[in-house]
Amino acid sequence: MKAEIISIGTEILLGEITDTNASYIASELPALGIDLYWVTQVGDNLGRLVEALKRAWERSDLIICTGGLGPTDDDLTREAIAEMLGEELRVDPELVEWLRGFFARFGYEMPPSNIKQATLIPSARAIPNPRGTAPGWWVEREGKLLIAMPGPPSEMQRMWEKEVSPRLRERPGEGVIISRTLKTFGYAEASVGEMVSHLASSANPTLGVYAKPDGIHLRITAKATDDEEARKMIREMETEVRSILGGDSIWGVDADTLEGIVGEMLAQRGLTLATMESCTGGLLAATLTDVPGSSAYFKGGLVAYSNEMKIAWGVDPRLIAEHGAVSPEVAEAMAEAARTRLGADIGVGITGVAGPEPLDGKIPGTAYISIDDGRSKRTVSGTYPPRRPEVKRRATVHALFELRRTLLNLR
Amino acid sequence: MKAEIISIGTEILLGEITDTNASYIASELPALGIDLYWVTQVGDNLGRLVEALKRAWERSDLIICTGGLGPTDDDLTREAIAEMLGEELRVDPELVEWLRGFFARFGYEMPPSNIKQATLIPSARAIPNPRGTAPGWWVEREGKLLIAMPGPPSEMQRMWEKEVSPRLRERPGEGVIISRTLKTFGYAEASVGEMVSHLASSANPTLGVYAKPDGIHLRITAKATDDEEARKMIREMETEVRSILGGDSIWGVDADTLEGIVGEMLAQRGLTLATMESCTGGLLAATLTDVPGSSAYFKGGLVAYSNEMKIAWGVDPRLIAEHGAVSPEVAEAMAEAARTRLGADIGVGITGVAGPEPLDGKIPGTAYISIDDGRSKRTVSGTYPPRRPEVKRRATVHALFELRRTLLNLR
Repeated sequence: MKAEIISIGTEILLGEITDTNASYIASELPALGIDLYWVTQVGDNLGRLVEALKRAWERSDLIICTGGLGPTDDDLTREAIAEMLGEELRVDPELVEWLRGFFARFGYEMPPSNIKQATLIPSARAIPNPRGTAPGWWVEREGKLLIAMPGPPSEMQRMWEKEVSPRLRERPGEGVIISRTLKTFGYAEASVGEMVSHLASSANPTLGVYAKPDGIHLRITAKATDDEEARKMIREMETEVRSILGGDSIWGVDADTLEGIVGEMLAQRGLTLATMESCTGGLLAATLTDVPGSSAYFKGGLVAYSNEMKIAWGVDPRLIAEHGAVSPEVAEAMAEAARTRLGADIGVGITGVAGPEPLDGKIPGTAYISIDDGRSKRTVSGTYPPRRPEVKRRATVHALFELRRTLLNLR
Repeated sequence: MKAEIISIGTEILLGEITDTNASYIASELPALGIDLYWVTQVGDNLGRLVEALKRAWERSDLIICTGGLGPTDDDLTREAIAEMLGEELRVDPELVEWLRGFFARFGYEMPPSNIKQATLIPSARAIPNPRGTAPGWWVEREGKLLIAMPGPPSEMQRMWEKEVSPRLRERPGEGVIISRTLKTFGYAEASVGEMVSHLASSANPTLGVYAKPDGIHLRITAKATDDEEARKMIREMETEVRSILGGDSIWGVDADTLEGIVGEMLAQRGLTLATMESCTGGLLAATLTDVPGSSAYFKGGLVAYSNEMKIAWGVDPRLIAEHGAVSPEVAEAMAEAARTRLGADIGVGITGVAGPEPLDGKIPGTAYISIDDGRSKRTVSGTYPPRRPEVKRRATVHALFELRRTLLNLR
């Protein structure tokens, strides 16, 4: 199946946003056995949009559009598809009802211009979008398939995962393609690449190595005549990868998140958690509370951004004077203070230098993470790319990874 | 001048890398007065590459290619350009010499395969590349201009800055294109679209409306013979937009962030800030501390995820019993507790329902934000899309927006 992506939006051609939708979809297609031949980015211009769609309709079997489904005059994707196929836009009563409901949920009247988003053409069926006011379009004609999805990545990705990808998977094809992603932390991408280099040449299953915000991911993709066979192939390679990397460094698979896994382990063990953060400025607490139901085990957090606060919340000022605010000793004291002051079973303390300026003679990117489970304390140090957001993110992921480690030993 | 970008490389179509070269070049073109109409991504396939080049040569004045200039068999950009123009590839002695020198500098013999990178066609001049073995191509024919640059961003950007951009600047006047983005909060995209709909039809300057995580953005883009004229056109439309939307709802422009603006206002006024968060779980603190130097005004934050913590940190339990944890009264008490307990000038309290489950009979997406500046308290309510991450993000942005409002009145 020959596929083509059309990314729509003048802001892309002005370089104001990078087209991550195209690369996201592109990375999803191989697992569906779909070949991507073209990606085209075009602005909010009806003539050029129709030109791009016509060409795609001629040369491709599957056309995936993102963007241009908003309610304003410069959102022209619906109009362009209708013109390209010579079909007429009609307001769909069900969509109008759904849209009114969407606004009503937030106590708004639907602005008249949103009616635009409730239109369809005869060959189009609406694709649900619970995250926004732009339904997608699923257009089938002349044995071709055209899919239009909204531009905002959170809406597009949800629509892709829950609606589009499953339907594409169901289509009669040659066998099945199944992927499994192993998520690791603590290795550099290149090191992982070297450790599994002998598997990189494998044609089926394939092994891909990707650097992600939460560590290095390894994706095993197997193509087979049936599900069972594909899973068997994946199991075999997974076993080999795990034996190479060591079980402890692989923290999860597929949709797992570190905060989700840590939360599950805390809930299972009936343990509670409290945090005291300096350089991460609350990002660890914010990440922990991304998990629904986290209130069951997350007691609370302190953002001790100044020494004054660290001391007010129980860190011995002599430790700061002696070792500096960015030190293993202070991280440990923060972890203990969080645990005792907030009455939790486990306390986490993070102190470091987010940058751009050095602190206490420590360079940006330095951080100490301590975990106190009441019986013992464990403190690790991290060195991250010295960019402020990067330091905060990496230190947060690192802390969650170490929390998992601690919990593994608290069986 | 109509421009088109062609990004070449199968790894792009496999989603293994995101095409940042295109967005980089796209962001550079407006200041050169060049209109970008198309971006095409194509794999390392001679047939499709020639097809893309032919179409670009027909419809565009300037074609900028990146990638496919390496020494291996799947690097086909030179071959494709030669075929598209019906010209012959010839080894250029000067380039061979330069290449040998390049390798010699690192003590290597030039591998035979690299001779490929020393080829040119009659219409092409080489563009120097001190960072790699792939010289660029500058091709002029039939009044059209085609530029081919290497794919590695560090090589491409250096070539663009030092060689290509200066030469394009020298070309006879195309005028300039300048953009300015106004950032608003508190309106729905469609409402903003309606308020400025009479400006949407303006051809120059143009007005675009975009929904972003931090609110609705309006982008004014003006094309003129010189910088001054363009800025004048933008000023005029900006004045009109501001009078329509009301100054207070426009919180920033261009690269401004709400946390940056709030931080600046706090620093200017010599005021300090403290937070107590429930449903946002620390995201407000984490966002405030994204700003370098925020330790100067951000005293610290409390993540009071349980009623127990809210009470421990100074919220009157009777308020919770009487009004529920998610109520204006509790938000106010949290703001005051944050201010007094953490010894700050201003306290912010946020309580709400992140979901997915309702709380105290309040539906997910409900939140109350209170700001206590020591003299007065102000509490607002918000209703957001009921997805957990969305609720946290929107409530955080809302709180920053209200903080700005408070600070505007604390002159």
